[in-house]
Amino acid sequence: MQSPRRVRELGVVVGTLPTGPLNAITDVPGVRVGQTTITGNGLNTGVTAIVPDGWAETLPASVAVGNGYGKLVGSTQVDELGVIETPILLTGTLSTFRVADALVTWLLDRNPRATSLNPIVGETNDGYLSDIRRRPITPEHVYAALDTASADLPTEGCAGAGTGTCALGFKAGIGTASRTIPADPTRSAEFGEHTVGVLVQANFSGLLTVLGRPVPAQAIDADGNSCMIVVATDLPLDSRQLGRLARRAIFAMGRVGSDYAPGSGDYAIAFTTARTPNFPDRDLRTPFQAVTESVEEALLNSLTTARTTTGHQTHTAHAVPHHLIANPRVL
Amino acid sequence: MQSPRRVRELGVVVGTLPTGPLNAITDVPGVRVGQTTITGNGLNTGVTAIVPDGWAETLPASVAVGNGYGKLVGSTQVDELGVIETPILLTGTLSTFRVADALVTWLLDRNPRATSLNPIVGETNDGYLSDIRRRPITPEHVYAALDTASADLPTEGCAGAGTGTCALGFKAGIGTASRTIPADPTRSAEFGEHTVGVLVQANFSGLLTVLGRPVPAQAIDADGNSCMIVVATDLPLDSRQLGRLARRAIFAMGRVGSDYAPGSGDYAIAFTTARTPNFPDRDLRTPFQAVTESVEEALLNSLTTARTTTGHQTHTAHAVPHHLIANPRVL
Amino acid sequence: MQSPRRVRELGVVVGTLPTGPLNAITDVPGVRVGQTTITGNGLNTGVTAIVPDGWAETLPASVAVGNGYGKLVGSTQVDELGVIETPILLTGTLSTFRVADALVTWLLDRNPRATSLNPIVGETNDGYLSDIRRRPITPEHVYAALDTASADLPTEGCAGAGTGTCALGFKAGIGTASRTIPADPTRSAEFGEHTVGVLVQANFSGLLTVLGRPVPAQAIDADGNSCMIVVATDLPLDSRQLGRLARRAIFAMGRVGSDYAPGSGDYAIAFTTARTPNFPDRDLRTPFQAVTESVEEALLNSLTTARTTTGHQTHTAHAVPHHLIANPRVL
Amino acid sequence: MQSPRRVRELGVVVGTLPTGPLNAITDVPGVRVGQTTITGNGLNTGVTAIVPDGWAETLPASVAVGNGYGKLVGSTQVDELGVIETPILLTGTLSTFRVADALVTWLLDRNPRATSLNPIVGETNDGYLSDIRRRPITPEHVYAALDTASADLPTEGCAGAGTGTCALGFKAGIGTASRTIPADPTRSAEFGEHTVGVLVQANFSGLLTVLGRPVPAQAIDADGNSCMIVVATDLPLDSRQLGRLARRAIFAMGRVGSDYAPGSGDYAIAFTTARTPNFPDRDLRTPFQAVTESVEEALLNSLTTARTTTGHQTHTAHAVPHHLIANPRVL
Repeated sequence: MQSPRRVRELGVVVGTLPTGPLNAITDVPGVRVGQTTITGNGLNTGVTAIVPDGWAETLPASVAVGNGYGKLVGSTQVDELGVIETPILLTGTLSTFRVADALVTWLLDRNPRATSLNPIVGETNDGYLSDIRRRPITPEHVYAALDTASADLPTEGCAGAGTGTCALGFKAGIGTASRTIPADPTRSAEFGEHTVGVLVQANFSGLLTVLGRPVPAQAIDADGNSCMIVVATDLPLDSRQLGRLARRAIFAMGRVGSDYAPGSGDYAIAFTTARTPNFPDRDLRTPFQAVTESVEEALLNSLTTARTTTGHQTHTAHAVPHHLIANPRVL
Repeated sequence: MQSPRRVRELGVVVGTLPTGPLNAITDVPGVRVGQTTITGNGLNTGVTAIVPDGWAETLPASVAVGNGYGKLVGSTQVDELGVIETPILLTGTLSTFRVADALVTWLLDRNPRATSLNPIVGETNDGYLSDIRRRPITPEHVYAALDTASADLPTEGCAGAGTGTCALGFKAGIGTASRTIPADPTRSAEFGEHTVGVLVQANFSGLLTVLGRPVPAQAIDADGNSCMIVVATDLPLDSRQLGRLARRAIFAMGRVGSDYAPGSGDYAIAFTTARTPNFPDRDLRTPFQAVTESVEEALLNSLTTARTTTGHQTHTAHAVPHHLIANPRVL
Repeated sequence: MQSPRRVRELGVVVGTLPTGPLNAITDVPGVRVGQTTITGNGLNTGVTAIVPDGWAETLPASVAVGNGYGKLVGSTQVDELGVIETPILLTGTLSTFRVADALVTWLLDRNPRATSLNPIVGETNDGYLSDIRRRPITPEHVYAALDTASADLPTEGCAGAGTGTCALGFKAGIGTASRTIPADPTRSAEFGEHTVGVLVQANFSGLLTVLGRPVPAQAIDADGNSCMIVVATDLPLDSRQLGRLARRAIFAMGRVGSDYAPGSGDYAIAFTTARTPNFPDRDLRTPFQAVTESVEEALLNSLTTARTTTGHQTHTAHAVPHHLIANPRVL
Repeated sequence: MQSPRRVRELGVVVGTLPTGPLNAITDVPGVRVGQTTITGNGLNTGVTAIVPDGWAETLPASVAVGNGYGKLVGSTQVDELGVIETPILLTGTLSTFRVADALVTWLLDRNPRATSLNPIVGETNDGYLSDIRRRPITPEHVYAALDTASADLPTEGCAGAGTGTCALGFKAGIGTASRTIPADPTRSAEFGEHTVGVLVQANFSGLLTVLGRPVPAQAIDADGNSCMIVVATDLPLDSRQLGRLARRAIFAMGRVGSDYAPGSGDYAIAFTTARTPNFPDRDLRTPFQAVTESVEEALLNSLTTARTTTGHQTHTAHAVPHHLIANPRVL
């Protein structure tokens, strides 16, 4: 069985912008990720937590809905106030609300005066590989993801909320990537380098496409597929601008072959760790490019790092063979 | 202590359209309401369930966001697909997600093949009168509200999700009202009488206004107030048209004196039990009027049927004195 | 025939916040208004221009759609970029596009390098009193409104884009009002007094209501009624927050008795002359109140300053008798 | 100089669904297209009219905004009422409003009682090749496009509103394509074959990509680029479902290499000639595929049918060399 490798290790270089040091969402300063993985007994599911420093003081954010056939928790308040006030969690669809409730518990423990909280929880349907109706996720699983969050490279593929997901006919899961926005010498001296980082929970249909090259799979008859995309940055953007980034994250799904199926719940949420917006819209071209490249690479990483998995009802999802991915133009 | 009375019993007649037989959301054929009320020990909270026949086959619906500072569960899928696929629940804000999770359990029990569900749960912050951080609502409370739903006049005031809510400086709670849309002889013979029914969970600030007359209250310093409005009808409307009705429900809050405060989560969800849309927009004037009148009357009912309540931290919310409400032009 | 008087001169005091010096949109520093009025020969129409200093460098802005049965020009770009880049014009519905084209001409003359422009033009249907199909507005009428814009109190009632409009069964037109937001001593010393100013083009149906008191009119059978509201401020708000203000402007229409009819195109656009957003959402209560009070008073002014007018096809719209408006509690 | 050829003639076959007889928007029964082309004297601009039978009785429709940096006329009313009530016009950006005004004139001539009209006009900035500030389009140009509309294959490339547009570094213009949705034997007998047809005005940046293969161009420094997409069908969809189709049209831009730049006004409008909605969302997969394939092919057609053009200030945009497009896997 092939070892998980990131797509860049296979010679596939997406785009032209430089990556951050880890090529991960955790390259954005102050952004940590923690995951709880649940396997065995017909279960392949889990929780992924994206924990930005400063969430308790709120951070500018925006949600883009590509296809609203999903159960994203927390979006109307983000639309109204333009901020998140909690970490962001991802999980399996039928566990969405118990995960949200556990996040509320975790938040109440940390703020003895809180009486209103807007947890953000995204989800996909991992029922092809996991006995989804059992809803095995407990509060402790959620706390573990939150409490172990670190700035390391997050485990990709079959981990956390990606443990049971499939995309483009193959086993998929969690993927991440990042891009660096170079300092702009035409702007003020203090406007230095910035980072865009992305984490995806990949679980959607279509024809896998690697740098434009189709990689057909045996179709998996997986119901209710979806894609959740989290975009983090330290660029000083306001929520409206973050919404523009989030929409580009949705658009980027097409680059790896998403068919944007009617039953897919495709959402992106973008947030920034910078609290004082100060960035002109006319300069958004490079941030948009950074989002597009990061999403494309994160989605490919979610596939090449996943392992063949057999789960509920002995359904099996195969990892994409790396030799089909490797870029002949490079290797 | 005054007995709860509906505002119409106090001589206040809102608008000109005829009411349904019960002057309640349950006048819409097939719409039932069940409630669980939790009191004592510093708690004043509960669950209200609106259960339309045929929810399992989906019903056309739409959500209007007046002020999105709230945690309404399920809105993006309603936006995308234009339907609800579950009953609608209302509760206290910090219990929103455990209520949603209990609704998922209830739904899974009724559909052995379901692997994806979009529960609809609205909420307000009842923390002035209820020890909200304890989140006392259990799955059994939710099942009880769902399973006891009936077509009777729902208990108004201090009941279900309105047990702990306050509005316009007074104790408020659940309120309901309805209007009949007369058969239109200019249309086809089979286009008969229809009904618009409304149920509100009233919990917002402003200056109580009764048929234009201000009724000042001692201000209650209640945090995070909100208003959830459910509009039911049997008119053959599509989701876009139901959205137009839902926005009128938001607009109608002003008629009783809402100040549409920045911290209020004001939402309306409208659904129809009719599945084949067939109603021209040019004829919506009377349905809009029916929504406006029903919401105004339901909000007033939520106040005049509520009892003075003492709760968490010995906070007390006073029922509005009926003599201040009674319409001198009528009595 | 009664002389036009502002509603405050009739003893009707809306709300509790202090007005600006002129009680007009032009109290917002840098905001000017110009109007062209066209009457005679069955015509009662015109152009109203709201011209904020600094429009050429763009100003933060947002549009709220209360009921989108209208032809507002320019909204999608405001949604995307959060700014206006031109003055705002109001006119009669069938002239909307030639007014927009004239504004483009005027802008091209002022910017020799412009190749893309997003004019903002609102409209209502003034066809009850004006022979709307003749579309009498010429570019010169538009230039005149723009070029004569001043910081004086704008003419209210039968002037500019309000020359031919009717509201709530009476002759209406242009109205304006303003409120002062006091300096906040709890904030930094430099956060001084600010202003919210409103200008309305009133042309909608419902039951005129003055401080809660109904003032029935003989119904006017006027087709396609609408309301355009322009909110100006110098508060340091971003476009998202301005959207929250704009929605309150729509909500405030109910205070004077709007029935939010299905055929009414009800829009509000809010902008600020301040370019560096720096205002917390939790402090928006007073700005919201300022918008609500200003819109209510501006709408009443649009009625009490209008004169009985006979126009196209000898239709007549009567000015509201002042004695019906005057507040017995004050006079 | 190469002759214009459609991309399918070059051996490039997009997707798997069958095309309609003309592979054009005019394959949708009752949909006609007319164009006026203006060239010479530094001008390369025009008008394209999409004229569906039955527009006067309104047709279900929806607008999707990919990036709202544009001046699309008419969108808020489509959002509210879910219909178009006029033909759809496309033109150059600074002429948008005089084109809309000419459409109003044309409509008033056809309906002696109309007093309110919602013209739909899309635009892009063709200023790289056309002296856009001259705004050369007259009412007669607009009438000609409307009055000559036919069900033939529309002229692609340098025609009508595409005369002066560039995309992906090459000369582009108008493109069209269509797909047939086979009759579904699992549904009722009368549910026969349907058609999705698309027409594009291509004027956006990115890296031309043909079936996944990049075709780099010399960059054209063209300001304010945009893409307008019109989707027509005879499927019995409601406006909400048409909105879902329109969003897929935006997503499909990525397939040919759009970079979704911040300054691009990317809009899609979808309408149906069927007036009685009757199509389940679960069956939308094939209609979505039809939109995606049609948009991809129409965009490629807009390039391969365009001729190298020199215009304003001797700017030249080169046609894409056909040998770079031709699919080696097929030819």
